[in-house]
Amino acid sequence: MNEELNRVYNFSAGPSMMPLEVLEKAKEQLLCYPGAGCSVMEMSHRTPSFEEILAKTKGTLRKIMEIPDDYEVLFMQGGATTQFSMIPMNLGKQGDTFCYMQTGQFATKAKEEGDRWGNAVYVASSKADNYSYIPVCGELPSDAKFLHITGNNTIFGVAFNDYERVLPKSVLPQNGKNSEIPLVADWSSAIIGKVIDVKKHGLIYAGAQKNMGPAGLAVVIIRKDLLENEIDKVVPIMMRYKVAADHDSMYNTPPTFSIYMAGLMYEWVEKMGGVAEMEKINIQKSSMLYDFIDNSKVFNNPVNAIDRSIMNITFTLPDKQSTEDFLKLCKDNGLINLKGHRSVGGCRASIYNGMPVEGVKKLLELMKKFEAQY
Amino acid sequence: MNEELNRVYNFSAGPSMMPLEVLEKAKEQLLCYPGAGCSVMEMSHRTPSFEEILAKTKGTLRKIMEIPDDYEVLFMQGGATTQFSMIPMNLGKQGDTFCYMQTGQFATKAKEEGDRWGNAVYVASSKADNYSYIPVCGELPSDAKFLHITGNNTIFGVAFNDYERVLPKSVLPQNGKNSEIPLVADWSSAIIGKVIDVKKHGLIYAGAQKNMGPAGLAVVIIRKDLLENEIDKVVPIMMRYKVAADHDSMYNTPPTFSIYMAGLMYEWVEKMGGVAEMEKINIQKSSMLYDFIDNSKVFNNPVNAIDRSIMNITFTLPDKQSTEDFLKLCKDNGLINLKGHRSVGGCRASIYNGMPVEGVKKLLELMKKFEAQY
Repeated sequence: MNEELNRVYNFSAGPSMMPLEVLEKAKEQLLCYPGAGCSVMEMSHRTPSFEEILAKTKGTLRKIMEIPDDYEVLFMQGGATTQFSMIPMNLGKQGDTFCYMQTGQFATKAKEEGDRWGNAVYVASSKADNYSYIPVCGELPSDAKFLHITGNNTIFGVAFNDYERVLPKSVLPQNGKNSEIPLVADWSSAIIGKVIDVKKHGLIYAGAQKNMGPAGLAVVIIRKDLLENEIDKVVPIMMRYKVAADHDSMYNTPPTFSIYMAGLMYEWVEKMGGVAEMEKINIQKSSMLYDFIDNSKVFNNPVNAIDRSIMNITFTLPDKQSTEDFLKLCKDNGLINLKGHRSVGGCRASIYNGMPVEGVKKLLELMKKFEAQY
Repeated sequence: MNEELNRVYNFSAGPSMMPLEVLEKAKEQLLCYPGAGCSVMEMSHRTPSFEEILAKTKGTLRKIMEIPDDYEVLFMQGGATTQFSMIPMNLGKQGDTFCYMQTGQFATKAKEEGDRWGNAVYVASSKADNYSYIPVCGELPSDAKFLHITGNNTIFGVAFNDYERVLPKSVLPQNGKNSEIPLVADWSSAIIGKVIDVKKHGLIYAGAQKNMGPAGLAVVIIRKDLLENEIDKVVPIMMRYKVAADHDSMYNTPPTFSIYMAGLMYEWVEKMGGVAEMEKINIQKSSMLYDFIDNSKVFNNPVNAIDRSIMNITFTLPDKQSTEDFLKLCKDNGLINLKGHRSVGGCRASIYNGMPVEGVKKLLELMKKFEAQY
């Protein structure tokens, strides 16, 4: 715990810990953004000051993610859940076939929204094994409009670490050509925390509140040809990617302050050495925990080793009492939000970009101490 | 201009000026919210700290607006524009009749979204007179699912100041009973800036970025019986009022920091004496401007006196050159964003709750000075 500020190490799955440096910059500029005479929160979105913030934020994301020119970057509202609906509404017509890999709760929720618009089908599932691995997906129905995956599952700590091993050929580019069927990936909990090859996707989306700033912002990276689909009349204006793209994410007033904060997060990642460097640090942080857990008699992680997330490390203790005791020990030492998701129990350490190595070391110390006394 | 902070008087139509006191509190708590050990931006929405913020924000709004118990308060994303779509999708079935009063650009945009879902019709319009007054609306088709109005038109500076004079009986409660047809009002630019009698409405909605804080939050106040409509299967989960109500606005991660900021704005209004007191101040501010304009040979306001907004005061000068000269004079003196909306030109002073009387006095001085030298 940073005594000076009473700040804790916050292992929340999202909204989540942000770098102190980023928060300090936001604090410094809170009453008056340089040259604007007002706070970013007070700034009209039609002023040069905000247009500059938007362009810079978008430009930095393009740079750190190496987003190719044939992809559009959109800033939207409504979180990843709104994307669950927008994807079928924009990539297919009513009644079309939409494919989903069921690798956790959010994949299930995404499919439910597909069901509202068309014929949504699971083409692979690890539900029977409590989502402890990424299943291999066979070939898709030829009329599939997309394959949807949850890149990193926040609740179970499972991730798509190797597309080539688990995905069908039809969703991956071959010989430099776009894939037959677009791959759509929810990378909410790992975006800019690990290298993601944008070119392999038709569409990537992510809620901001894990690696990219405050809640209330979602980022969509979409291959431009997918903006040209004919859209059903009933689809609301705010749910059309083309409208957002044509208005540079400002068809109406965008969430200006959240975009500004995301920009500060992107600049911080750039300064830290970029996404590849963040990935190295995140692998280091997660390996420290996984290595200890795999040799522990008290702590256990059920996830298939090659499918483990470097962002969300789940672990269980032998029983409910020991779990509660451990969570209390953590809390007493300024490590909070380590309780597993309400739907699964146990513990979970979410260690996004904003979680410093020191926080993970501190957690490891407490795990060792707890095990020694067990 | 406040030299100390280089803060200007910002007359933007939204996002707009916020009380310095509110921004200072946000700044003070930016790194560490009392008792939470982290910033509000970093706070999981499932923690007691955030649940307390949400409950307090909602409670204070209920109090200052005197919202009756049979109305639900929802915090949503996507701005008022998303509400344009949600209203027909939640209050009617596909093909139903939806009525709109055309009193400006946003009324027109609202109707366009009604057209996607059903048979949207204008039942009154002031378009032919460039929206310079509020037309009287006759009786509605008996199958109308709602009547939609834009309570305060931000662009033209026109407002519904007297429901009884302009609205049909069927949309107003009679003898303490709910109206036959729900009245739906977009009060984005006047909410908590003037007294609004919630009981007269089926639904009130408002984007936050004018009187209630940063962009990225919309508030919906809906009579509970309207939550019970049967909803078409294709309506996205995030666009269902019932889902938002059943999950206390947290079906997914809400825009936590924006809700917190709205809460600070509500508390500030409460401290200032409540909405009735704010209305008094806003009438005082707007009257200063209207009184001067009505006696001016240089400045002109075309709006019907009884339909004038106390939030957005529009005015024109004799020609383009004098308009530009006046805007330059203002800017040179630290008064910004006084240019009229790009669709209408001229000038506009948006003087929401966050604009202090001193700012309006300063503007008035410059208008007098400009006229004297004209």
